[in-house]
Amino acid sequence: MNKTNDRTNRNRKRKRSRHRGVPGAAPGTVVSDPNSAKTVIRVLATSPGTFFEQEITDISDLSEVLARYTSVWIEVTGLGSADKIVQLGELLGLHSLALEDVVNVHQRAKMDAFQDYLFVVARMFDTFDTSNSEQISFFLKKNLVLSFQERPGDCWENIRQRLRMRHGKIATLGPDYLLYVLLDAIIDSYFPVMDRLSDEVDALEDQITAKAQTKQMHQVHQLRGQLLDVRRAIRPHREMISAISHHESHLIEPETHVYFRDCYDHVIQVIDSVDTYRELTSDLRDYYLSMVSNSMNEVMKLLTIISTIFIPLSFVAGVYGMNFDTESPWNMPELKWQYGYPFALTVMGIIGFGLAWSFRRRGWL
Amino acid sequence: MNKTNDRTNRNRKRKRSRHRGVPGAAPGTVVSDPNSAKTVIRVLATSPGTFFEQEITDISDLSEVLARYTSVWIEVTGLGSADKIVQLGELLGLHSLALEDVVNVHQRAKMDAFQDYLFVVARMFDTFDTSNSEQISFFLKKNLVLSFQERPGDCWENIRQRLRMRHGKIATLGPDYLLYVLLDAIIDSYFPVMDRLSDEVDALEDQITAKAQTKQMHQVHQLRGQLLDVRRAIRPHREMISAISHHESHLIEPETHVYFRDCYDHVIQVIDSVDTYRELTSDLRDYYLSMVSNSMNEVMKLLTIISTIFIPLSFVAGVYGMNFDTESPWNMPELKWQYGYPFALTVMGIIGFGLAWSFRRRGWL
Amino acid sequence: MNKTNDRTNRNRKRKRSRHRGVPGAAPGTVVSDPNSAKTVIRVLATSPGTFFEQEITDISDLSEVLARYTSVWIEVTGLGSADKIVQLGELLGLHSLALEDVVNVHQRAKMDAFQDYLFVVARMFDTFDTSNSEQISFFLKKNLVLSFQERPGDCWENIRQRLRMRHGKIATLGPDYLLYVLLDAIIDSYFPVMDRLSDEVDALEDQITAKAQTKQMHQVHQLRGQLLDVRRAIRPHREMISAISHHESHLIEPETHVYFRDCYDHVIQVIDSVDTYRELTSDLRDYYLSMVSNSMNEVMKLLTIISTIFIPLSFVAGVYGMNFDTESPWNMPELKWQYGYPFALTVMGIIGFGLAWSFRRRGWL
Amino acid sequence: MNKTNDRTNRNRKRKRSRHRGVPGAAPGTVVSDPNSAKTVIRVLATSPGTFFEQEITDISDLSEVLARYTSVWIEVTGLGSADKIVQLGELLGLHSLALEDVVNVHQRAKMDAFQDYLFVVARMFDTFDTSNSEQISFFLKKNLVLSFQERPGDCWENIRQRLRMRHGKIATLGPDYLLYVLLDAIIDSYFPVMDRLSDEVDALEDQITAKAQTKQMHQVHQLRGQLLDVRRAIRPHREMISAISHHESHLIEPETHVYFRDCYDHVIQVIDSVDTYRELTSDLRDYYLSMVSNSMNEVMKLLTIISTIFIPLSFVAGVYGMNFDTESPWNMPELKWQYGYPFALTVMGIIGFGLAWSFRRRGWL
Amino acid sequence: MNKTNDRTNRNRKRKRSRHRGVPGAAPGTVVSDPNSAKTVIRVLATSPGTFFEQEITDISDLSEVLARYTSVWIEVTGLGSADKIVQLGELLGLHSLALEDVVNVHQRAKMDAFQDYLFVVARMFDTFDTSNSEQISFFLKKNLVLSFQERPGDCWENIRQRLRMRHGKIATLGPDYLLYVLLDAIIDSYFPVMDRLSDEVDALEDQITAKAQTKQMHQVHQLRGQLLDVRRAIRPHREMISAISHHESHLIEPETHVYFRDCYDHVIQVIDSVDTYRELTSDLRDYYLSMVSNSMNEVMKLLTIISTIFIPLSFVAGVYGMNFDTESPWNMPELKWQYGYPFALTVMGIIGFGLAWSFRRRGWL
Repeated sequence: MNKTNDRTNRNRKRKRSRHRGVPGAAPGTVVSDPNSAKTVIRVLATSPGTFFEQEITDISDLSEVLARYTSVWIEVTGLGSADKIVQLGELLGLHSLALEDVVNVHQRAKMDAFQDYLFVVARMFDTFDTSNSEQISFFLKKNLVLSFQERPGDCWENIRQRLRMRHGKIATLGPDYLLYVLLDAIIDSYFPVMDRLSDEVDALEDQITAKAQTKQMHQVHQLRGQLLDVRRAIRPHREMISAISHHESHLIEPETHVYFRDCYDHVIQVIDSVDTYRELTSDLRDYYLSMVSNSMNEVMKLLTIISTIFIPLSFVAGVYGMNFDTESPWNMPELKWQYGYPFALTVMGIIGFGLAWSFRRRGWL
Repeated sequence: MNKTNDRTNRNRKRKRSRHRGVPGAAPGTVVSDPNSAKTVIRVLATSPGTFFEQEITDISDLSEVLARYTSVWIEVTGLGSADKIVQLGELLGLHSLALEDVVNVHQRAKMDAFQDYLFVVARMFDTFDTSNSEQISFFLKKNLVLSFQERPGDCWENIRQRLRMRHGKIATLGPDYLLYVLLDAIIDSYFPVMDRLSDEVDALEDQITAKAQTKQMHQVHQLRGQLLDVRRAIRPHREMISAISHHESHLIEPETHVYFRDCYDHVIQVIDSVDTYRELTSDLRDYYLSMVSNSMNEVMKLLTIISTIFIPLSFVAGVYGMNFDTESPWNMPELKWQYGYPFALTVMGIIGFGLAWSFRRRGWL
Repeated sequence: MNKTNDRTNRNRKRKRSRHRGVPGAAPGTVVSDPNSAKTVIRVLATSPGTFFEQEITDISDLSEVLARYTSVWIEVTGLGSADKIVQLGELLGLHSLALEDVVNVHQRAKMDAFQDYLFVVARMFDTFDTSNSEQISFFLKKNLVLSFQERPGDCWENIRQRLRMRHGKIATLGPDYLLYVLLDAIIDSYFPVMDRLSDEVDALEDQITAKAQTKQMHQVHQLRGQLLDVRRAIRPHREMISAISHHESHLIEPETHVYFRDCYDHVIQVIDSVDTYRELTSDLRDYYLSMVSNSMNEVMKLLTIISTIFIPLSFVAGVYGMNFDTESPWNMPELKWQYGYPFALTVMGIIGFGLAWSFRRRGWL
Repeated sequence: MNKTNDRTNRNRKRKRSRHRGVPGAAPGTVVSDPNSAKTVIRVLATSPGTFFEQEITDISDLSEVLARYTSVWIEVTGLGSADKIVQLGELLGLHSLALEDVVNVHQRAKMDAFQDYLFVVARMFDTFDTSNSEQISFFLKKNLVLSFQERPGDCWENIRQRLRMRHGKIATLGPDYLLYVLLDAIIDSYFPVMDRLSDEVDALEDQITAKAQTKQMHQVHQLRGQLLDVRRAIRPHREMISAISHHESHLIEPETHVYFRDCYDHVIQVIDSVDTYRELTSDLRDYYLSMVSNSMNEVMKLLTIISTIFIPLSFVAGVYGMNFDTESPWNMPELKWQYGYPFALTVMGIIGFGLAWSFRRRGWL
Repeated sequence: MNKTNDRTNRNRKRKRSRHRGVPGAAPGTVVSDPNSAKTVIRVLATSPGTFFEQEITDISDLSEVLARYTSVWIEVTGLGSADKIVQLGELLGLHSLALEDVVNVHQRAKMDAFQDYLFVVARMFDTFDTSNSEQISFFLKKNLVLSFQERPGDCWENIRQRLRMRHGKIATLGPDYLLYVLLDAIIDSYFPVMDRLSDEVDALEDQITAKAQTKQMHQVHQLRGQLLDVRRAIRPHREMISAISHHESHLIEPETHVYFRDCYDHVIQVIDSVDTYRELTSDLRDYYLSMVSNSMNEVMKLLTIISTIFIPLSFVAGVYGMNFDTESPWNMPELKWQYGYPFALTVMGIIGFGLAWSFRRRGWL
């Protein structure tokens, strides 16, 4: 676990605040990160009674699809080809600042309303690695959802399947409902993350109660860092979803508002969990520290008690080891006494057991 | 207590953030938890002068009841049968998202207003086990209250009795008043919980003042966890009840508003208590830690004082245990001196008592 | 002090969250606490030029008084007789929920506006015992102030005297001004409490600076608890007085608003004090802990230094106590040397003073 | 420093929450604190082209001045003579509650708008003694600023000079600008206080980095207390100045608003500084504690290492000090061996240096 | 690093709250700091098709430039010449309070709207030295941006280049867009600062995990101070940019609003980072403290174990060093026993290894 964990950790750190371009660069410039995945564009379009799915290589082909279908989902995976993204933006009339934010994957979740479209940014977590978050951007136009994700692999397979089967509301309601479904899946993907963290908190609590150990402090510290990551990511979703659900325009149908309200409730639930777990780990740290200090104290107390019992005994032995000339009757007559030795041992025994008994009576032993 | 407590504890943890379905599943799908209790439907209906109570097995029977009585309470106990719940929802025209929330028992308390009904979620605690909370959901329609609870057993027996006896306002006022009475009973059930926690805090404070012990830290830690649970549960009730009491529609009669305002006051009182007790336990933890560190210090000080007194004495004994050849008049003449031994003992006595006296004078002993 | 303090303490705790009735009981039921004082009703009425004061035993006598005087103060002391209170409520047309709150003396301060009267709850503290708080309830009607207090004894004697002497504005202005005067006296009674707590904080700070002792931690802990009690009580007064002063109805004359605004300022001042003292005691606790740990450290350091100096000396003595056969010229020639003993003592002295000097030079001694 | 500081300290404490009158006293009663300075009234009046300055003893003389000049500043210094203040209030038609607040010098900064005048309270600090704050009250009427201060001595000499020289805007703009100038001087007097505290924080940080000492904790504690005092005083100025600058009436000319906005910025700057320094001292305290505990640990570690090295050596010496009869070849043959003593010393040396080397290698020495 | 760091540190401190002028000085007086750089004025003006750039020495030359070009940027570098700044202010009709704030370089970021211009203050950081911040002030008029900076050297070279090349929107849009571009560059310059601090936090975390050392506490303390500086500087930008983007006047074109909104997002991102890093360093401090106390405990435990093992052994040796007369068969017969010495050594060995084994079994060794 150590190695992997360390690498994970380092990635997490390195990603936290990578900044965009050079200060003073022209705003609205779309520059791809050289490490991004290659851009793949896929279209899933529905009209009453029909369904169409295809990977698109020539962006101008899209015009025709948009004209023919009433609800189109353009999925862009990988942000490596700046030119394709710019071309797409031009075709659909998107603002260059928004496109810059799509490529610059360190945005906080937000909703920006433009003249005839909405720009939405969300963030998704890998369940087992909070350091590995991905920015998902959406554009919602009249009959179109355009989504951008950093890498292949997501939590939407289920949704694509429902679209393909023309199954349920997703097939009959418009792109606003599709946007809700996609966002809802992203929010729902926070729950397994919270479950994993919750399990780790519980396991740690049990371990600490059993036996406080140094590495637990490290684990508590890491857990707190991960919760901070999740909190930082989820928090702005609240405002974002609220902004969408209160947005008044023809883009969001009245009947979809109730769905966004539901999605909002889920965000609140996640935020509530994260805050609770931050508090729990804070309590846990205090608990750990007091357990550690307690067990340390116990050890030191026992060790000190052993020394304290033997030091007076050694003193008595030292006294009878003195070399006073026993010729004089005043000088150490015990040494010549027939029962001197047993007497000395008895005295030592009394002192030793007396101390031990007195310590035990005070509850120290 | 240990065993039970442990189990309780583990349950508490496991329940905290269980998530709903698979991310990407179709919203509004009602799937019962396989461990839920079997669904039992019971109807209590009143009209001026009449009262009707029956367990319902065939849901279509309800239409007739609803048509005949002016105020109907449909009690659903146990969420095990998804089909019955869906059937009920269809009969009464309830939104599938709301029904999903009914079955998914990890909602925060909330009020959602739909076209012609209100959807209300509350949370109830078992008095002696904060880990054991239960989600109660309500639908309020024109002449109907529909309640869902997870398990049989609640704090409403009193209310049913009043209904049966057609006693007091509950028999004459409409379903909005009935909803108030049911919610008020739920909120009131928080007071015994707070009383128990308060007693535990007081007992702990007395115990710590008497003698700080390791297990107290564990208890403080657990109390804080329980208070966190209660706080997390009660907090959203504030907004929920406020939303109901400010809701303007024909569903809530003007004269009922004053009752919801009273209920709101009770919620505030509980929140206030919980916050106070969180602060008190925080103070308690600091108090505990300082008491523990204090008593530890006292022990270590006493032990160290004992060592410190005997180490110089042992040194003196060591000196007179040296084997210098007493032929030379410079070498240890005391050894040959007639009163050497009493002199040495006196010196040791003076040193020992001198140190002890000096430590006592400084208040260390 | 111990005994009294302990009892006080226990009372404080027991009172904090006693809950009302059984969950599910009918709302608006007035049930007296069996330990409440007997209810005594007293009326003080003024009209331009006249004053009337009498203890009332038959509540129906009040109708006549209300009809004859323009400003009537009905003082109810002791909440023991539920029937009298209900009778009074019926005579004056008061809502049963409000009457329930009067008897249920664990309300937070609040103002509830009803159709033609205001219901106001305040909380008063005993100056020397923060555990001993009393709920004061008021009803303000067109020409009437009705006050309820738990026990005889209050801070209003002065006001009654002014009424009797028909002295100042209290005799000419209406019941709204009277309500202000009564509330203002309650708020003012917080200042001596704060003064006492402030004196205790200051005394503690001086004592800790002089010498940190265990019982101080206990005192800081108790002070924090008392401040928490006061804060919890005073806080809701802010909203209550603000609600009265912003209430627009014929019940509050425009010229009285400025008085309530002044009263509001006093509440803010008390809250400000309490918050400051909470922070001060928090600082004080940290200060205490660092003083204690510091003095402990000093003690342990000194003790350890004494041991550290004597242990090497004992070692030297131990060396010369070894029994090697001095026949061999290699074996302990010092023992036979004429100046062996003075030499050994000198070596010990050099080591001892050397260590002591080196410790002192580093500032440890 | 000790004596002065102590006295200062005690004053600070005693002043914090002295309460006004007896609870239940008639509101609006102006009672002077018997220790207040004698009241001196001074008038500075301007009209286009003229300036008039005089000490006033007969308050009725003021009417004439008010009639003749367009902008009058009545300066009242010392609050000892309640009758003069009441007389002034009657002449100018001021509310008795406001006058009570003038004399009762424990108000928070505030602005109260009356029918045709504003009542403003501010608080000023002595630069070198945060315990020594002074309440300054103002009344702003159409052509009049009336100021009250507790003691002679202020930061306004400069302003009086500008008035006397009829220099700058102060001579041409009305009393609202004069009020701004006076308030601005009060706010500006907080900056030197913050500078002094900032210097003390910096000095302490350097001292702690150099060598952590007990008295520093005391200083940090005192600094925090002073910052609390300043924060408590400055905070309400924010709302007060904001209230003035948003007050809409003929009393504040539109062109003066920009000045109050500037003054508001300064208040925010001070509050910002105080908050930052509170956080800095909090960090400083943690830093101090860790430095102290660190240096303590170093000392204890070194002392313990010395003991730990010598205790095994003493043991070896103790072994060769045993008195076994060397007749038997099994009993301590080393004692008779020619090189026994050098061998024993060598063994001891190896043990001692071995332990020391091993401790150093682990970085403990 | 030490020396430089120390100086840096001291500068940082000295700068934090230097106050403006003498309290009571006339408001709106422009007094240059004697240490400021010499004032250099440079103009960059564009009109459709033309570009003009020149250093200006005679301020009256500006009138002509302003008349001829549609978008003028007047860059003032160095605030040393108060007269030039006043002259500029008079030419452009700027309020003296605003000019005072330009020279008084301790303002918080803010936007003040005047009749026909906006006054904007921002703060810029040196990437490698958070103590070295610079106040940048702007005036935005109809066809003019006037910027003031304290020193030569900034993050705008890129922007000047784009202006000179008449490249992109900067050449076609008005001064409001130019203001946005300049502010955006300032905000962007916070990202490298955050990156550097983030790297330091990460490096520290790794170092502490590897081995806790005293100087790390100092570094954590300094990091926290730097984050406090940055937070204090960036926070007011939020309100400032929000004020600009919500400002409704002819000065800001509607199409520029979206740019300011983007800039606002960046500010929020920085604030978010700073707050996260404050929390991280707080966690880090706790982590450090627990690591230090842990390693200290380990050391003390090991040392105490060594002593505890040898003290009983020394006692045994002491016993056999006693000088009882072995004539009596009761007195120390072991001394005469043939195998006495081996027996004694064996006893010691058993005791020593027994203790060591028992300590190891408990996990202490």
